[in-house]
Amino acid sequence: MTEIPSLVLERIIRMALEEDLGSGDVTTDSIVSPGVQGTASLVAREQLVLAGLHVFAGVFQTLSGEVRFENHYQDGQVVPAGGRICRVTGPVSVLLKGERTALNFLQRMCGIATTTRTYVEKCRPWKARVVDTRKTAPGLRVLDKYAVRMGGGFNHRLGLSDGILIKDNHIAAAGSVTRAGELAKRGAPHLLKVEVEVEDLEGLREAIEAGAEVVLLDNMSPGEMKKAVEAAGGRVVLEASGGIDLGNIERVAETGVDIISVGALTHSAMASDLSLELQGMP
Amino acid sequence: MTEIPSLVLERIIRMALEEDLGSGDVTTDSIVSPGVQGTASLVAREQLVLAGLHVFAGVFQTLSGEVRFENHYQDGQVVPAGGRICRVTGPVSVLLKGERTALNFLQRMCGIATTTRTYVEKCRPWKARVVDTRKTAPGLRVLDKYAVRMGGGFNHRLGLSDGILIKDNHIAAAGSVTRAGELAKRGAPHLLKVEVEVEDLEGLREAIEAGAEVVLLDNMSPGEMKKAVEAAGGRVVLEASGGIDLGNIERVAETGVDIISVGALTHSAMASDLSLELQGMP
Amino acid sequence: MTEIPSLVLERIIRMALEEDLGSGDVTTDSIVSPGVQGTASLVAREQLVLAGLHVFAGVFQTLSGEVRFENHYQDGQVVPAGGRICRVTGPVSVLLKGERTALNFLQRMCGIATTTRTYVEKCRPWKARVVDTRKTAPGLRVLDKYAVRMGGGFNHRLGLSDGILIKDNHIAAAGSVTRAGELAKRGAPHLLKVEVEVEDLEGLREAIEAGAEVVLLDNMSPGEMKKAVEAAGGRVVLEASGGIDLGNIERVAETGVDIISVGALTHSAMASDLSLELQGMP
Amino acid sequence: MTEIPSLVLERIIRMALEEDLGSGDVTTDSIVSPGVQGTASLVAREQLVLAGLHVFAGVFQTLSGEVRFENHYQDGQVVPAGGRICRVTGPVSVLLKGERTALNFLQRMCGIATTTRTYVEKCRPWKARVVDTRKTAPGLRVLDKYAVRMGGGFNHRLGLSDGILIKDNHIAAAGSVTRAGELAKRGAPHLLKVEVEVEDLEGLREAIEAGAEVVLLDNMSPGEMKKAVEAAGGRVVLEASGGIDLGNIERVAETGVDIISVGALTHSAMASDLSLELQGMP
Amino acid sequence: MTEIPSLVLERIIRMALEEDLGSGDVTTDSIVSPGVQGTASLVAREQLVLAGLHVFAGVFQTLSGEVRFENHYQDGQVVPAGGRICRVTGPVSVLLKGERTALNFLQRMCGIATTTRTYVEKCRPWKARVVDTRKTAPGLRVLDKYAVRMGGGFNHRLGLSDGILIKDNHIAAAGSVTRAGELAKRGAPHLLKVEVEVEDLEGLREAIEAGAEVVLLDNMSPGEMKKAVEAAGGRVVLEASGGIDLGNIERVAETGVDIISVGALTHSAMASDLSLELQGMP
Amino acid sequence: MTEIPSLVLERIIRMALEEDLGSGDVTTDSIVSPGVQGTASLVAREQLVLAGLHVFAGVFQTLSGEVRFENHYQDGQVVPAGGRICRVTGPVSVLLKGERTALNFLQRMCGIATTTRTYVEKCRPWKARVVDTRKTAPGLRVLDKYAVRMGGGFNHRLGLSDGILIKDNHIAAAGSVTRAGELAKRGAPHLLKVEVEVEDLEGLREAIEAGAEVVLLDNMSPGEMKKAVEAAGGRVVLEASGGIDLGNIERVAETGVDIISVGALTHSAMASDLSLELQGMP
Repeated sequence: MTEIPSLVLERIIRMALEEDLGSGDVTTDSIVSPGVQGTASLVAREQLVLAGLHVFAGVFQTLSGEVRFENHYQDGQVVPAGGRICRVTGPVSVLLKGERTALNFLQRMCGIATTTRTYVEKCRPWKARVVDTRKTAPGLRVLDKYAVRMGGGFNHRLGLSDGILIKDNHIAAAGSVTRAGELAKRGAPHLLKVEVEVEDLEGLREAIEAGAEVVLLDNMSPGEMKKAVEAAGGRVVLEASGGIDLGNIERVAETGVDIISVGALTHSAMASDLSLELQGMP
Repeated sequence: MTEIPSLVLERIIRMALEEDLGSGDVTTDSIVSPGVQGTASLVAREQLVLAGLHVFAGVFQTLSGEVRFENHYQDGQVVPAGGRICRVTGPVSVLLKGERTALNFLQRMCGIATTTRTYVEKCRPWKARVVDTRKTAPGLRVLDKYAVRMGGGFNHRLGLSDGILIKDNHIAAAGSVTRAGELAKRGAPHLLKVEVEVEDLEGLREAIEAGAEVVLLDNMSPGEMKKAVEAAGGRVVLEASGGIDLGNIERVAETGVDIISVGALTHSAMASDLSLELQGMP
Repeated sequence: MTEIPSLVLERIIRMALEEDLGSGDVTTDSIVSPGVQGTASLVAREQLVLAGLHVFAGVFQTLSGEVRFENHYQDGQVVPAGGRICRVTGPVSVLLKGERTALNFLQRMCGIATTTRTYVEKCRPWKARVVDTRKTAPGLRVLDKYAVRMGGGFNHRLGLSDGILIKDNHIAAAGSVTRAGELAKRGAPHLLKVEVEVEDLEGLREAIEAGAEVVLLDNMSPGEMKKAVEAAGGRVVLEASGGIDLGNIERVAETGVDIISVGALTHSAMASDLSLELQGMP
Repeated sequence: MTEIPSLVLERIIRMALEEDLGSGDVTTDSIVSPGVQGTASLVAREQLVLAGLHVFAGVFQTLSGEVRFENHYQDGQVVPAGGRICRVTGPVSVLLKGERTALNFLQRMCGIATTTRTYVEKCRPWKARVVDTRKTAPGLRVLDKYAVRMGGGFNHRLGLSDGILIKDNHIAAAGSVTRAGELAKRGAPHLLKVEVEVEDLEGLREAIEAGAEVVLLDNMSPGEMKKAVEAAGGRVVLEASGGIDLGNIERVAETGVDIISVGALTHSAMASDLSLELQGMP
Repeated sequence: MTEIPSLVLERIIRMALEEDLGSGDVTTDSIVSPGVQGTASLVAREQLVLAGLHVFAGVFQTLSGEVRFENHYQDGQVVPAGGRICRVTGPVSVLLKGERTALNFLQRMCGIATTTRTYVEKCRPWKARVVDTRKTAPGLRVLDKYAVRMGGGFNHRLGLSDGILIKDNHIAAAGSVTRAGELAKRGAPHLLKVEVEVEDLEGLREAIEAGAEVVLLDNMSPGEMKKAVEAAGGRVVLEASGGIDLGNIERVAETGVDIISVGALTHSAMASDLSLELQGMP
Repeated sequence: MTEIPSLVLERIIRMALEEDLGSGDVTTDSIVSPGVQGTASLVAREQLVLAGLHVFAGVFQTLSGEVRFENHYQDGQVVPAGGRICRVTGPVSVLLKGERTALNFLQRMCGIATTTRTYVEKCRPWKARVVDTRKTAPGLRVLDKYAVRMGGGFNHRLGLSDGILIKDNHIAAAGSVTRAGELAKRGAPHLLKVEVEVEDLEGLREAIEAGAEVVLLDNMSPGEMKKAVEAAGGRVVLEASGGIDLGNIERVAETGVDIISVGALTHSAMASDLSLELQGMP
């Protein structure tokens, strides 16, 4: 499973800490002596799928080389309500300074993973993969997409350079699906597939003829999708997209599409409820 | 109303665009000629409170000096479902490259503003201000907090350096509320107030004696809060916090507290449904 | 044809100018008054394929808003020896400060484009595309790959995240081609193809069975490649790689492979000979 | 011998790794478990002068604290074809992720050092130093110039702020060599020498009168250079420049000039052929 | 006492080292072998208040992991002339490369702390706090303000976002003190106090009525200030500002104001005289 | 006269503005409507030498494209007390947000230029140049050194890479002046001169024999310096350094040394007293 590159992660963590710390923690530094050590437990206050434990840890490690972690769960596992995810030991002042930033990362990532898992569970009887979109929080895409993977989902392209997706506007600009497909294939790097967005069966037919390797069925009803699956006959990968939620995903999955992409995995996931409880202070 | 500093905004927009564009848009550049001009409408697909229109515009302006905007709404206004927020005119290739990033910013900010507005409406009969927390998306705090303001809410401190908030762990580290308050006031810059988190009326009494100027009532019931309001008698500003949602905020507001802080404004706001519809392509 | 993203280009140009200018141009600023205007011609001192004219211009535009360009050629065209590529008008001090940095970009990019063109010409009778590799100058990959496109070549993946290429070491780590392919396909984003590197026909057979969509024939002789083309029978895209130069590329192309990748396009291209000739100084 | 400043090196390495890794290595992370350790040998596939071994190592060390090196050669030494330069031990996934970036740095630097050595060898019977120019790969100048030193060459100024070099255009702007020299000396920091570019003996005479401490003989024939050496009579340092290659450098050196600058050392050096061979995988 | 955030400090140190080292230390690297170890003493050449010892150390630690420190004083202490502040042990080349940058930080910070201490001593008989301003060296504000704290002073707001200070121009823009105060309080985060600048007793009265929590008495004479103290009667915090120096601060302090702000603490502090003396070289 | 490179200046200005603006100007944005225009005069409140007017302007221009300047003085000129340096017109909110940062730059730069001018005036009867050192505010060296030039002084090397200065510690490490000089000259770029620091006439003699082109007379008395000037007989440039102030610089200058370096120009210059006075507000 693709890891978040460490250099990218470092950069994101530093940006977040600089944002929260500003010119310094005026409360903690006034009250807590730098030398005081403490221990804290990271606790799930509701059931969740864990994602981003190393991001959480990285926040404290960026602040100090003296923080230690003892993990009881790992990314991808389900943590029950009340579950103690890890123990953190180090200077109390560091625990207090990093707490909010570390939790902000983790609550978002667990929220995404937990939401994803719910969608994935619904699709389990069928072959369809649950896939994310580019509808992520700006600057946090690698984290959002990692969380989707931890929830059992898969990733669509990360950005505009690692996948060719011809949408309605591209087709309009080119004049026809055929022409758009031709132009895309002419210059495309040979390790990228060409996906075409269509709205009906006629579009699907044209897309296949134009050499599409993946076809996105945009806002089709389950009934239409079923026909699309039959019409495609396995010649292309079919992705269902648009307006899919927990209420209708099963009906989509049972049409036989290969991929179901859901923007809500990342654009509207609820934060998981987590807390960092300090013990052992003097 | 505090504006997002332009340099900070530029930095965030560039980061987001670099994230999405990677080494280039392999689809658009293959299909759309650089010279083709087009016009698009930004449309609200559900009712929302607008927030971040200049962030949306800034994305396209960062990509090209040739994009023009005609705005029909401004930040803070309610846009009805179907409302056309603005018209964007410029090179089609630029509109396509910036679309997702621009919408990702706007859907998050409008989501936060719209959610905030709902909370604010509930409190309108009482004096309580609805206030955000530091539970924001890492790297996007100035945007999240701006959106809260556009929704009619107010901001708590932006980070650890612009407000003194003594929490339970600080009190434990200091040994007592009295000692913690004393230490905090000793070194505090004179334009920052001291807020103390308490869990009961006894804590409130101690906090006031220790010189707190604001007291955070943590996870108290409305009944306890009412007693706290009476006990404080206007000597300190009272902030209610913890477990407050749309279902109970009215009961909290009617207790007479001054401030109600709600993490969900920023950590779990649903993205608003917006789309950018291109017209006028050849 | 994919453009270099403007934000990435800006960053690279600034880095290069800061590198060359250091704390300032002690020669020019001592001698040339800031107000003096001049005109210069960019001249090809040998025949070349033009690539990067906007990078060249961007260097001067980053230094000053007062520099104007009149282009006589555009990227991708062949410029004969002695050809005047463009006229640059602006403050002489800016022309002198930007000259070396602008030429350093252009001479490298034209060198790559010109070299690529030579390879591409050799392959013209056959279907094989000439493709680059990741053997580029660190930090300049988007420029190097753009230059390859301008020379008529195509791009392999830009980096490790936009293509799956299973090499011998991956196969060794997995235990077998079959297992490596299985693992790769299990987690791969659905817009990325899977390429497998093989050394002989047996490897090719295994790779196809393992579901490879592209197979890299590593260091095979033209004779073996011809057999591979027959054995593949069009089921996979075939890429020839390893030890290919101007002396043998025709023999490789005539085997019928789809793609020929050549590291030397970018790692050892000779700089094109270009000069910026100032006129019209007082 | 001046070292590459560690902060600059770190910055360059991070930039290169971010460029190659993008959002993550989709191949390696799918196939290779993070825990698997391995050993690799860095092998010269042709004779070369080693330059940049710590840059090569720095790439892996930036990715992980667990990579170890055992060096058999050091920078500046000649490595024969087949020579094992160092052994690298660490997580296989790290070796695979850093391989290309590390080799891209090293193959360029060794290529430059090896080329430089060839020029230096040719000049050995005479006093002339072989010197580089500012014709380097943008962003990599400190590496390119370090490689020249490892090949036995010397560095010209690094950039526009650490040396005064009055070229023809400066002279034209000033009106005369005398005036240009006067202006340059008036404001020059006292640790920088003044070099003047001339095209003939008359120019040389003027430059010496104008107080030049170094004179660049631009594109002169060996015959003219010899006369210049006699005319200068040791009063100034003489640098030969322009159109010097392996075919004519001996004739230039024997004229008695002090310095011979060669742009091709850095702008057109062939990459050295190096490989990283993994052993000991399961 | 608020610490300088480590990430901010790292960034400032790196910027300073890159500024001084440029492309490398051409003197030290030519002369001193990398392996040679040495020891140096940091010596105060005049009496000073120590501030920034960890910044001094951080410079060397950024260059190398091999430098060790033995401290004899700590920040905030008075070091007598001739006092040995710490011993530094490590590679001589690192000591020489970092020396100037480390001393540049320390001499400025100690200068500020020492100056501050002199002001603070003068005010000791009265309650007034000595406070800094935003008149700091651009980019070094967190260091300047830390030094003020080490000298016994206090900090005014760090920047424009962590305190509300309504100046004459704001009042003019609003039309009146009352209106300006009203506007400021309407949107102000509840942990920030509102300070209003006034020039006379009438202004003070208006400011108090407008809800000011702190009032800045701008350029008043001690006599007027005394009246202001009486008029305020403890209802607001009073800050004296403008034209205060060592010659008049006692007269200001004895008026009974709470706070005295002094721009000269940071904008015109003399550098302390410090030297790094190397011993133990071969 | 060497200009501050625009890219470096932009970077410094942005850093300073981000430092001061933080998350936004909570005062101005509450009170001043964005559309209100105003005019301000930059006034010298004491006589000063102007330096950095374009830095001052650059601060406002970085915040907004709508600010205009009308300059009455230019850098290097003496402005009398009360002199109006320039008029600034633009949005009042921008004038208020940029004011402090712009003045912080200018007051420091004018302070340095004014101090420098005083030293330069003292030396006017003799040939000695007044020169700065590397004792500058970290991160602001290019500004500090520019200000020295505006005050009529000259620059020593900017950093460790653009000049060779062999100090006592280098000599100790090498074993002797002769050996240190030899090592330095062996690898030195040919446009950098070699300067050697000596403490007595014997040292001077050795330095000259070792090939020094400049000799730094460290902490010598004027009497010794006079002997050094005679001993050197014009063979080397002589720089006086150490403990030179306004009280003794004339005696140093009249010894006949070529250069006098003064650390206090930059490490302890008093800020000039400047103010920005707004007019024309509603």
